[in-house]
Parts: sequence; structure tokens; C-alpha cells
Amino acid sequence: MTAYRTQRAIRFSDCDPSGIAYFPAYVNMLVGVVEDFCAAIGAPWRDMIQTRRIGLPTVQLDVTFSAPGMLGDVLDWEVRVLKIGRSSVALEHTISRDDTRLWNATQVLVATTLDTHKAIALPDDLRAMLTRQLEPHHA
Amino acid sequence: MTAYRTQRAIRFSDCDPSGIAYFPAYVNMLVGVVEDFCAAIGAPWRDMIQTRRIGLPTVQLDVTFSAPGMLGDVLDWEVRVLKIGRSSVALEHTISRDDTRLWNATQVLVATTLDTHKAIALPDDLRAMLTRQLEPHHA
Amino acid sequence: MTAYRTQRAIRFSDCDPSGIAYFPAYVNMLVGVVEDFCAAIGAPWRDMIQTRRIGLPTVQLDVTFSAPGMLGDVLDWEVRVLKIGRSSVALEHTISRDDTRLWNATQVLVATTLDTHKAIALPDDLRAMLTRQLEPHHA
Amino acid sequence: MTAYRTQRAIRFSDCDPSGIAYFPAYVNMLVGVVEDFCAAIGAPWRDMIQTRRIGLPTVQLDVTFSAPGMLGDVLDWEVRVLKIGRSSVALEHTISRDDTRLWNATQVLVATTLDTHKAIALPDDLRAMLTRQLEPHHA
Repeated sequence: MTAYRTQRAIRFSDCDPSGIAYFPAYVNMLVGVVEDFCAAIGAPWRDMIQTRRIGLPTVQLDVTFSAPGMLGDVLDWEVRVLKIGRSSVALEHTISRDDTRLWNATQVLVATTLDTHKAIALPDDLRAMLTRQLEPHHA
Repeated sequence: MTAYRTQRAIRFSDCDPSGIAYFPAYVNMLVGVVEDFCAAIGAPWRDMIQTRRIGLPTVQLDVTFSAPGMLGDVLDWEVRVLKIGRSSVALEHTISRDDTRLWNATQVLVATTLDTHKAIALPDDLRAMLTRQLEPHHA
Repeated sequence: MTAYRTQRAIRFSDCDPSGIAYFPAYVNMLVGVVEDFCAAIGAPWRDMIQTRRIGLPTVQLDVTFSAPGMLGDVLDWEVRVLKIGRSSVALEHTISRDDTRLWNATQVLVATTLDTHKAIALPDDLRAMLTRQLEPHHA
Repeated sequence: MTAYRTQRAIRFSDCDPSGIAYFPAYVNMLVGVVEDFCAAIGAPWRDMIQTRRIGLPTVQLDVTFSAPGMLGDVLDWEVRVLKIGRSSVALEHTISRDDTRLWNATQVLVATTLDTHKAIALPDDLRAMLTRQLEPHHA
């Protein structure tokens, strides 16, 4: 299984008055990472949403926070494709700082048409792009 | 089990360019509802955080989104205390629009000291307030 | 000139790690207040945006922050219509806590068609609603 | 005068249901750019805030939005130091896409002590770093 890897800094705007990263800010960051992941595999959201009118809303999110993130921390972020269904894809996110796991999440997204917000089959090209991520030796 | 009930409108700022409520905005809303719930049972966060230096970070969140929310929708929100541990409390959130379930979540929060962000036992007064929510006939 | 009055609490999510209200959170709150103001005068955004495809983007915002807001503060918010142009409206926001001015803003919004995002004349009904706010004795 | 230059992409999370960049998201982005600017000149906020307990709240912000930004746009961002006072610094932000000005802002920030949130003189090292940005030939 190929991991998509990226980094995110914890910014001032991501932290709460208790001094640590605010978890809804993490969830917002997660959407941006999925956006970058989709662009990296060949499916930029501008095309998906504006041209093709296809959405990828999240239908399930399970998150475990293991250790607090602090202002200025740099997060190492890994995204793996766990499973591809007819209209859905499951992703696993692993977020670490210097080899310490801070949090991880599994996320299920579903392809929809933006006209009715109903689920549709994953478009063939997107399915092919995601499937390639399941292969062990893909860069 | 007593449910804490409140309402939230889906605002312009909560919606994404695909036209539906943005789920990280929902998660942000959820924190505000827990803040209101804590104030309602007698534990306002200003005192908790600024005076007593006690935090209530979330360590687990499991969310299922069943139907999209739209700009202007009014959400009926219910919060129930599922379980109280030594330093943790589990909450269940149920969010509906006109008796249609839009999404639900279970959330585990842990009491911490803001000096080290380490877990501490739930303070006795907070434990008592939360325990009262477990009783069936409490208003 | 009639003032529209509302209140907003400064929530946990509105505060930054320096312990005070985060000013982009204030700006986000301001949009919500304008949304409520429009609904109150008879122009809910759900209709404006989804049905009529009319936007009200902000083209100018000038803000002065005089004193910091704190977690749990309740803000008294006043909105006044300063000036109505062909396609624009200028609003003045005054935000206080217990008679102490915390910040104020002037904001110019322009009516646009969402198809091209170009300016259009203010729709007659919206112009009439806004004009009524300029009158001195209106409730 | 030396300009600090960076880029920002307009993400899904930055756009509103009318299809364009949401201006409070721009203001949030602006804070992140100032954070990066401070780090670039030698004053990372983690040190400023957590170690030295010095804040840099914004006391004035004047923004003009000239053209809408769209999902996927890449913004060219320039920051210039306009003026340095005893405890304040004025910055000018210019944000363009392919040589088209989308928006610009002037921002005044003030150094404060986080213990009382009162203004203090700009620390000497920060003043020196900012002053260097006023010089014409500085890289």
C-alpha cells in the first residue's frame, strides 16, 4: 500500500486558548490534506466540483487523539487508501511529530452528484487513480 | 438518561462551495454545544480554563453523517452522557432536522491540567454535575 | 437611523493561544451578524443565494480594535445602515462589552449575480428594506 | 522597501456557498502570512508567545476586495513594512492572481505583554528585524 506523505505546521490560528491545537482545526487541516492528495493523484477538486459537479463528502470519521500538538510543531502526515467501494473510498490518516503519533483517523468519503447530493458510482478515472494507491510498489 | 437539548442554525459560514454544511464546521459547532452543555450543568469554561486551569480535550471522536445539511437549516441537537470514567466522560450527540437524523457522534473528553496537558481525575464537582445527567428523571 | 441590535458570546473556538478573541473569528462573527440582520429585515440568505442567485460580497472592510475580548464575554452588537448606493450598501458595526467599546467596523457590501459575480443594482425589495433602516423612528 | 513574498492556494475550505473565497478565510490566511513573515525575519511566534509572552494583536485592519478569488487559485502575496512606531508596526498586504490585484490590506499590529494585554515598546530585536525590511536593497 502506497502512502501519500505531506507536512503541516501547527499555526497560531490552529491553537486554542488552552494552548494546544484545536481539534476542529485538525479536522479542517485533514480536508486540505485530502484535497492535496486528490490533486497529487490526478483529481483536483476545482475540476471535480466546478466542472464535473462531483462532490466527495465525508460520511464517516473516526479520530483518536493521542498527544497534544503545540504551536509551531511540524506534523508528518500519511494518507493511505484502505478500501474502495462502489461509490466510497476509505482513507487512513496518521499524523506524527518526530516519530511520536499525535493522532490518527479513518475517513470514508462518498462520490455524489452536486445536483442532488445523492451517491453515485465512483467515476472510472477516479477509481483507477485510487486503485493505483492500493498497489504496494507505486511511488 | 437526561438529554441536553439545544438548536443551531446552519449559517453561510458553515457551508462549503459544494452547497452543503462543511463537516469541520459541524465539528466546530459541536465544541460550542459542549461548551454550552458544560455551562448549563454548572461548569462554565471561563472558570474551568482561566481560573482552575483545567482542560477538557477530546481524545476520541466518531462521527457518522447520514444526510447533508443546507444553508438555513435549523438543527435539533441532543447531548447525552454515556459513561463517566476516572478522568474521562463519553458524550453522545444526535443532530436532526425535522425528525430526520443528519448526523451523530460519540465523543470522549478527558480532564487535564493545562500546566502539563496530562490527564487528571475529573474534579469532584464536575463529576457530580455529569453524574446527575445520567439519572433518568432529571430535568 | 435605526440600529439592529444583537448579542454574541465569545466562545472557546473564538479565542487564540494568547488568550484573547482571535480577530479573524470576529470577522467571521460579523458575517453571521449581517446574515441575521438581513433575515431580520426580510431578506434571508437562503432565498437570496439559492433561489435568487444574488450574492452580497464585501468589497471594503475597515476595522478598529480598541480592547481585547475574552472567553465568555458577551458582546452587544449594533448594526446601522450608513449609506445605500446603486448596487452597494455601507454598514457600521459597533461592538461593546458592558458599555466599553471593544471594536467597530465599517463594511461595504455589493449586490452581485452569482452566475458571473459581477455587480448588479440592489434588487428593489432589498433596497426598500435597507432604506427603512435609515429612517429615525423605525423599530 | 523590501517585500516579503509568499504564495497561498485558495482551498475548498476557504470558499463559501456562493462559490468564491470567503473573506474571513482571507483574513485568517493573512494572520498565517504574518506568522510566516515574522518567522522569516527571525521572530517565530512560538518563541514570542510561549517563551517571551509577547503578543502582536492587530489594532487596525483596512481591506479592499477588488475581484473574487476562486477555488484552486494561487495567490501571490506581498507584505511590506510601511511604518514602525514605538509599540506598533504597519504592514501593507498586496494579493494578486496572475498580475490581477484581488485584494489589499493595511494592518497595524501592536506589541503587548500577554500578562495584561497592554501595549509595550517593540522589543529591540524585533524592531531591528522590522527596520531592516524598510531598507531598499535588503534581500
